[in-house]
Amino acid sequence: MKKGQVTIRDIALKLDISISTVSRALRNSPEIKLETRKKVLRTAEEMNYSPNVVAQSLRVNKTKTLGIVVPELASHFFAANISGIQDTAYKRGYNVMICQSNENYEQEKSDIRTLISSRVDGLLISLSRETKQYEHLTNLYEKEIPFVLFDRIYEELPVTTVTVNDTQGAYQATKHLIGQGCKRIAFMSGPEGLYICKKRLDGYEKALREVGIEVDPQLIAHSDLTERSNRSLTEDLLKLKSRPDAIFALNDPVAVDVMKVLKEKGIKIPGEMALVGFTNMPFSDALDPSLTTVDQPAYEMGKLAANNLLDQLIDPEGFQPRTIVLETELVMRKSSQKK
Amino acid sequence: MKKGQVTIRDIALKLDISISTVSRALRNSPEIKLETRKKVLRTAEEMNYSPNVVAQSLRVNKTKTLGIVVPELASHFFAANISGIQDTAYKRGYNVMICQSNENYEQEKSDIRTLISSRVDGLLISLSRETKQYEHLTNLYEKEIPFVLFDRIYEELPVTTVTVNDTQGAYQATKHLIGQGCKRIAFMSGPEGLYICKKRLDGYEKALREVGIEVDPQLIAHSDLTERSNRSLTEDLLKLKSRPDAIFALNDPVAVDVMKVLKEKGIKIPGEMALVGFTNMPFSDALDPSLTTVDQPAYEMGKLAANNLLDQLIDPEGFQPRTIVLETELVMRKSSQKK
Repeated sequence: MKKGQVTIRDIALKLDISISTVSRALRNSPEIKLETRKKVLRTAEEMNYSPNVVAQSLRVNKTKTLGIVVPELASHFFAANISGIQDTAYKRGYNVMICQSNENYEQEKSDIRTLISSRVDGLLISLSRETKQYEHLTNLYEKEIPFVLFDRIYEELPVTTVTVNDTQGAYQATKHLIGQGCKRIAFMSGPEGLYICKKRLDGYEKALREVGIEVDPQLIAHSDLTERSNRSLTEDLLKLKSRPDAIFALNDPVAVDVMKVLKEKGIKIPGEMALVGFTNMPFSDALDPSLTTVDQPAYEMGKLAANNLLDQLIDPEGFQPRTIVLETELVMRKSSQKK
Repeated sequence: MKKGQVTIRDIALKLDISISTVSRALRNSPEIKLETRKKVLRTAEEMNYSPNVVAQSLRVNKTKTLGIVVPELASHFFAANISGIQDTAYKRGYNVMICQSNENYEQEKSDIRTLISSRVDGLLISLSRETKQYEHLTNLYEKEIPFVLFDRIYEELPVTTVTVNDTQGAYQATKHLIGQGCKRIAFMSGPEGLYICKKRLDGYEKALREVGIEVDPQLIAHSDLTERSNRSLTEDLLKLKSRPDAIFALNDPVAVDVMKVLKEKGIKIPGEMALVGFTNMPFSDALDPSLTTVDQPAYEMGKLAANNLLDQLIDPEGFQPRTIVLETELVMRKSSQKK
């Protein structure tokens, strides 16, 4: 977070344009060509230029604030998203305010109302697990309030979305377990309607079908993502007549709860039960055993979401919604390696 | 987060007062005695009464929004603080908006300005590790903007503060290590000026002096709380001629970084090096080895901070700043138990 002493003069020198052009570009003056404005902003970002936010917001009739709504803050994934958003916003002269929905639909609506009342210039939203109606988003769209959806998205609106390739990540994880000799791979998923659950289920099923393993509905559990639910569904899987030999968990926090139950019952990981998560949270390599997981570029997601929203704010006319899908990477650790 | 169907009629029946009194008390009408207002609000909270926030905020000239500023969101401790604040605020008809300072003083000031511009009714603030000047807080106080400080506080202003008994927690942790036979106990602390560092150092030193162990400055490290700093200071401790046999870490995230270095170097925990943290984050019992730590009631801290701020908002005249100190508890796990 150290700020350099970069001035608009440095930016002007680098791009070989006048200081007044840089200054007007940074203020998004329509006198400057969009191409130039974007180039100046990118260069300012690269050079770590820090505008005088207070002076700047006096010049334009905007709050220069972005609102973020996430399901929960006690999640490394969303915390990293937010850091990516905030660092990007700050570099481009914007502040952010954050609300958490606590995975609750009513709270999500209330959060959006609160941020709109605070006159944020735009919103970045990741939906709660309970959100099954979307009028609040349709309303935002109809009122022409700019917003971007990330990770937990609604696909039916022409707005920019940023996700990871959930299907591919789940496919890699399941394929890895098959490669370790696992025959009965369970999928500890979340609420059926949730975007990431649907996509990750697709990848899981694809990997199984590819090698001729039949998808067994008994092996697919839908947790409500609380520790209690994760635990009791793990216990249910262990009670099956034909017990699974691997569990692929929707995310790392779910994997941790599964791991706790397995350890309490003295089931050897990975010997008796291989385990793979999804997230790659900072502590997953310090777990016992270290957790194989699918790495999500959470910070990068936040950065892209913020940059796209800010581009839209600068040039509402030229805006085209984008569907951005980032690739994931399987991180192999001890919890899954039987061989 | 399920909301009951409790109405103001139910509250009136329970307290044996009129519906209009309950209604006016919930709106904080000065016509109703403060005692009654408080009783009604407490009962409403106990019965899980959920007011119609939109209707209510039309009635009063307030935004019914609290602003929160925390150093970082990627911390279970602050995430739990925020949950405690938010649940409490929501029950009492308030929304919250959150900003993170990223441990940066300038960002902290900017966050406070942003929230004030959004006309929040009051603020809950935990200071960044870089904050060594306090004019921004003094300004808030002079402008009579209600705020509460929690965990990382500034003691010189007559505002409500909520902390845990950091000194006692550190004392317990150090005493426990002495009881395990450790002779050279290092303290991996944070920035010297930080409130929690000073208080925890006091407890560490008190425990050592009590049994006649001299405090060795070589064994006290001041990390800037980044992973890089935590790691390199751990390596420095290991290079000492007379190596420590135990490390007490400022918090669990620091303890995790220490643990990683020890494991990489093949140093047995707790055999060759006992390790204790401070926080009790959700994954600390799933680490290898499970982490002995000092449990902080983070959710409770948030709840108390919010309730005290809301009481102040309701009754500014009757307000008296409180200094609230919560007790901690040592949670003994494998990382420290040599015996």
